[in-house]
Amino acid sequence: MSAFSFEVSHTCGRARRGRLRTPHGEVDTPAFMPVGTLGPIKGVTPDQLAATGTQIQLANTYHLMLRPGERVVADLGGLQRMTGWRRPMLTDSGGYQVFSLATLRKISDEGVDFRSHIDGAAVSLTPERSIEIQNALGADIIMPLDECPGLPAPDEVVSAAVERTIRWAQRCRDAHRRDDQALYGIVQGGLNPDLRRRCLSALAPLGFDGFSIGGLAVGESPPEMWRLLDQFANELPADRPRYVMGIGTPADLLHAVDAGVDQFDCVLPTRNGRKGYAFTWNGVLRLRNAAHRADLSPIDAACGCLCCRGFSRGYLRHLLSVGEVLGGTLISLHNLHFYQDFTRSMREAIECGQWGAFRDRTLPRVTAVSTTEPDEAAAASPIEE
Amino acid sequence: MSAFSFEVSHTCGRARRGRLRTPHGEVDTPAFMPVGTLGPIKGVTPDQLAATGTQIQLANTYHLMLRPGERVVADLGGLQRMTGWRRPMLTDSGGYQVFSLATLRKISDEGVDFRSHIDGAAVSLTPERSIEIQNALGADIIMPLDECPGLPAPDEVVSAAVERTIRWAQRCRDAHRRDDQALYGIVQGGLNPDLRRRCLSALAPLGFDGFSIGGLAVGESPPEMWRLLDQFANELPADRPRYVMGIGTPADLLHAVDAGVDQFDCVLPTRNGRKGYAFTWNGVLRLRNAAHRADLSPIDAACGCLCCRGFSRGYLRHLLSVGEVLGGTLISLHNLHFYQDFTRSMREAIECGQWGAFRDRTLPRVTAVSTTEPDEAAAASPIEE
Repeated sequence: MSAFSFEVSHTCGRARRGRLRTPHGEVDTPAFMPVGTLGPIKGVTPDQLAATGTQIQLANTYHLMLRPGERVVADLGGLQRMTGWRRPMLTDSGGYQVFSLATLRKISDEGVDFRSHIDGAAVSLTPERSIEIQNALGADIIMPLDECPGLPAPDEVVSAAVERTIRWAQRCRDAHRRDDQALYGIVQGGLNPDLRRRCLSALAPLGFDGFSIGGLAVGESPPEMWRLLDQFANELPADRPRYVMGIGTPADLLHAVDAGVDQFDCVLPTRNGRKGYAFTWNGVLRLRNAAHRADLSPIDAACGCLCCRGFSRGYLRHLLSVGEVLGGTLISLHNLHFYQDFTRSMREAIECGQWGAFRDRTLPRVTAVSTTEPDEAAAASPIEE
Repeated sequence: MSAFSFEVSHTCGRARRGRLRTPHGEVDTPAFMPVGTLGPIKGVTPDQLAATGTQIQLANTYHLMLRPGERVVADLGGLQRMTGWRRPMLTDSGGYQVFSLATLRKISDEGVDFRSHIDGAAVSLTPERSIEIQNALGADIIMPLDECPGLPAPDEVVSAAVERTIRWAQRCRDAHRRDDQALYGIVQGGLNPDLRRRCLSALAPLGFDGFSIGGLAVGESPPEMWRLLDQFANELPADRPRYVMGIGTPADLLHAVDAGVDQFDCVLPTRNGRKGYAFTWNGVLRLRNAAHRADLSPIDAACGCLCCRGFSRGYLRHLLSVGEVLGGTLISLHNLHFYQDFTRSMREAIECGQWGAFRDRTLPRVTAVSTTEPDEAAAASPIEE
């Protein structure tokens, strides 16, 4: 499709440096995509988001179909015009939130019946309906409805989800109506590379514009996820963008890029930012710590983000302790800036043929406990409390 | 004092156009001061605040003395450095919040003993302590502790509050230690001009840098407040700034400026913005109305604020209905921009000798029910639900 293209300009090992072209602009890959659940990144304006270096953001179909409803979004000019983020966007299929948020799910080959987590209303999501909604929302990249079992799960459960995901993928492909929107395929298969291969072999002929690895970050340990990526990601078609959904920590990103992945999305920088955790090149900083009470230093003196240029750790701690939303916004902006700086550094390392050295040098830094924060071991690992 | 000066450049009737000079910059008067209760205007960055045309902001001593405590603010460089708002600031005395928020108050000539509304801790606020805290916070303009009875109140209650306010004013004057901070006097006296005159005559010799009318917007009707301002405000010394605390609606501002007032502060544009009410030159718009569901127009097509340049009423309504804080931030920014545009228009009308015509033309517009919102009569008056 002419409105969408992808090319890989550099490789280094399996790591790839590339560029997506979409109707709303270009995206350098590897690309980190922040999550704007209900449209915007919480508390962040589009100008502030662009200043973090973000080129593409995700929005959640499940949330938007419930409120304000996809017809309202379409009436308001589509996602980009409505949110003021007139750059590339991606919507998920809604399936992941149906499985994680909604109640009274009944899943069949037809689709999923569930109750809205907002008001308990009965809602039905089918492959066709997911695409219809995403056609109305108008993101540049859209995703097919898939079945995403939590892990651990027996092979027969994962295998059944793979087969249903394949049947739904075909129906989504058939239902898709807009040639200005790229449609990716989602590969399921849990931690079993053979099930992943079975899924991919059935999806590959369907003409998807990119391929996603779904069903990760759903209960398995990080090393299990990293091993699956290592075993499988590079088997995805080399001429299409490869997207791992819902990851992750800086370490997850390093492992994914090392395995040949181009795109990822995660709520971590914003959700954990609102909770007072700041990502840095030397690990995670817990800003609620009493040690920061009168701390005049910024989160990272070497960081050029809006937060680090103007605000001290002590002030951020004050804002967090009084529940002032500006604190969460400022730390979210820092974390997004860090994630974009981090992915930019990965791209540069690939471009100049230094990926392996960059990976080996960076992994211990971002997973280490910050030396200035000896009591914060817990904060250096993924935080989801 | 050399660090602080005030001059009136134009008068038109009793209305005055002037300029305050403070250590952190100049302020054109009449001036509207937004309220940053805990430091920042809720959800708003200093850059965004400056873009609304705001030149000076207020912060609440009561809230800051409890969290993070004035010593922490001082350690973080004082209010301006801590918040990143490196422009003029004013702090109140803390008295108003003690009377409106704290429990188990015991008031005596010594001061007020109360329980914190946060954790019930026993706290004492005396005139000397209020000044000590404000010296540590470091605003450009500070206020003395006063006794502020709610209205209606019998003359003997108001009269006793006047006498105590006078005694406390002298103690605050004596306790003040920083010559880079202006100290205003607060005139109490309720709706009785004679009690106001008694208070002013006792305060005038004490050498305050400006004079405030306190004890309004505490239960009386708008017309009662306007009459008191009309009867009394112009008796405040002509060579000092005149500040009415805690007001108000656009109509309140017109009445105050008409009576010769130079400064006001109020939470209305931000608090009501977070609730979904937008101020415009044609009255108040309730953005939660279902009529705005798919409304592509901005709050005010003629407004140049960040909100009106990028976001539709329909999107703002969506953000409000899902509880996304960005909605409150964007509407707050519009409302502050409107208030600053409104006060700038007042200044221009005074400069060009057209105050009376401006006042008469503007009062019915801003108090009228918006013609596009026939069901919104309630929203056109002050909203404090």
